[in-house]
Amino acid sequence: MVIVICVFFLQKKYKFKIRNEMTYEELFRQIQKKRSFLCVGLDTNMDRIPKHLFSEDDPVFAFNRQIVDATLPFAVAYKPNLAFYEVLGAAGWESLKKTVDYIRSKSPEIFLIADAKRGDIGNTSGMYARTFFEQLDVDAVTLSPYMGQDTVASFLAFENKWAVLLALTSNPSATDFQYFEDKNGQKLFEKVLHTSREWGTPDRLMYVVGATRAQELTKVRKLVPEHFLLIPGVGAQGGNLQEVARYGMNEHCGLLVNSSRGILYASSREDFAGKAGEKAQALQQQMELILRSSGLL
Amino acid sequence: MVIVICVFFLQKKYKFKIRNEMTYEELFRQIQKKRSFLCVGLDTNMDRIPKHLFSEDDPVFAFNRQIVDATLPFAVAYKPNLAFYEVLGAAGWESLKKTVDYIRSKSPEIFLIADAKRGDIGNTSGMYARTFFEQLDVDAVTLSPYMGQDTVASFLAFENKWAVLLALTSNPSATDFQYFEDKNGQKLFEKVLHTSREWGTPDRLMYVVGATRAQELTKVRKLVPEHFLLIPGVGAQGGNLQEVARYGMNEHCGLLVNSSRGILYASSREDFAGKAGEKAQALQQQMELILRSSGLL
Repeated sequence: MVIVICVFFLQKKYKFKIRNEMTYEELFRQIQKKRSFLCVGLDTNMDRIPKHLFSEDDPVFAFNRQIVDATLPFAVAYKPNLAFYEVLGAAGWESLKKTVDYIRSKSPEIFLIADAKRGDIGNTSGMYARTFFEQLDVDAVTLSPYMGQDTVASFLAFENKWAVLLALTSNPSATDFQYFEDKNGQKLFEKVLHTSREWGTPDRLMYVVGATRAQELTKVRKLVPEHFLLIPGVGAQGGNLQEVARYGMNEHCGLLVNSSRGILYASSREDFAGKAGEKAQALQQQMELILRSSGLL
Repeated sequence: MVIVICVFFLQKKYKFKIRNEMTYEELFRQIQKKRSFLCVGLDTNMDRIPKHLFSEDDPVFAFNRQIVDATLPFAVAYKPNLAFYEVLGAAGWESLKKTVDYIRSKSPEIFLIADAKRGDIGNTSGMYARTFFEQLDVDAVTLSPYMGQDTVASFLAFENKWAVLLALTSNPSATDFQYFEDKNGQKLFEKVLHTSREWGTPDRLMYVVGATRAQELTKVRKLVPEHFLLIPGVGAQGGNLQEVARYGMNEHCGLLVNSSRGILYASSREDFAGKAGEKAQALQQQMELILRSSGLL
């Protein structure tokens, strides 16, 4: 009792927030609370952010902060895309870290995904896990399955952190290898799902499935009925939200649908954040309808 | 003539070196010149570098600089492993950049590989290419093939730069998916080689093949007789140099054999650089024998 009171006053004084670790149940709770399964992709491109931000010390962070402020009521997750920060060198890492810390300070219950598509082994994989879970304090990292279980193990060794494994991606050349087929007609992406679902529970592991391949979601759901799916490709890449929900949703929603460019660059002028908020809200409203009609709200 | 003289004097004055772009022929020339096909992996781990370096401003760079000074006579390539720098955040990127710049200043004709195992598409892939070829000025980047040709295209769009595609890796769980087999008995790693060899000439594309699978090199060489192979796993991971050469060498050598921990951590004391140099030299001497007995010197 005394401890609880102490923590309460310390929390008031120092304005820190006690964070719920993001479990499967907690993620579903957030989706119900916000009536949204929107993930906002922070692919913050220096060539595309409004010119007036260049007078700021850190234009990338200034952009992200305003995007987060405008979209936070409508999103359950953010997904910074590492490439857009690394291209700026050390300064980019600072912008990324400030962004992650800002989101955490505004909303501890947001799910944060580093879209890094790493894929290495042993010692090296462990270093990447420390990078994302200790340096950056995100909840999840996207990973490539090519090198097998060794890639994922170091990430799952962190308690309450998630690995998000590429299964079927939204790009045209995804078919080069992901559709490579064995003698029983099993495709590589199905093999990846079938093998990897043993590596981590649905509480620790999710999969990337591109929205441009919504009809394949039926096959995906046969293999991984419970796992969350991170779905890029709605919007700019042509994927359709209704189709994704029809084929991919499960009884805990089981979907995080990402939109990046459609939100971030809704306007290239000073009103960019307001316009981004409108785009995010429009998606949230569509998601709310879907959640209601599926009986999940 | 006037321009040549001007450049000569400018070069003398400012001590810059004019760099040969690293073509296939130039790489073979360097191998012949140094009588070595050694790549030194810069997996510089803060937990393993000698304690006396912690008094330096940048212990990672201080370590790398001494390793490079000691091993440069015996190596044709260096391969910094991104994970070990990213784990240090922005400071790590600074150390990496200083390391790359230092190697370039010491020896413009060294082949520099960023071991990043990136694998993304379109816009994002383009950002990664700019990161490594503009921010860092390396010659090559390791890439994962899972997302198909889209991953590699942005890297090959840079003139005289290389993509190094994962084919068959040295880790135990490489077999999870790389050995996935179609109805004709073709394995995924063979499919990757067969499909991707059309994407770039041997002058722009090489492959990672783990030394622990040396006997598979016969199959690899049937599919890509000319391409260079980057071979990790000799030493710490148990691969055998003679076997690698027997099954993998071609008439332009066609091999870069990497050693990381065996060289970097040969000693944990103040003599670390000297010991690293000895390890590198021992490998170079074995390589020289192999090159001679293969008639390549």
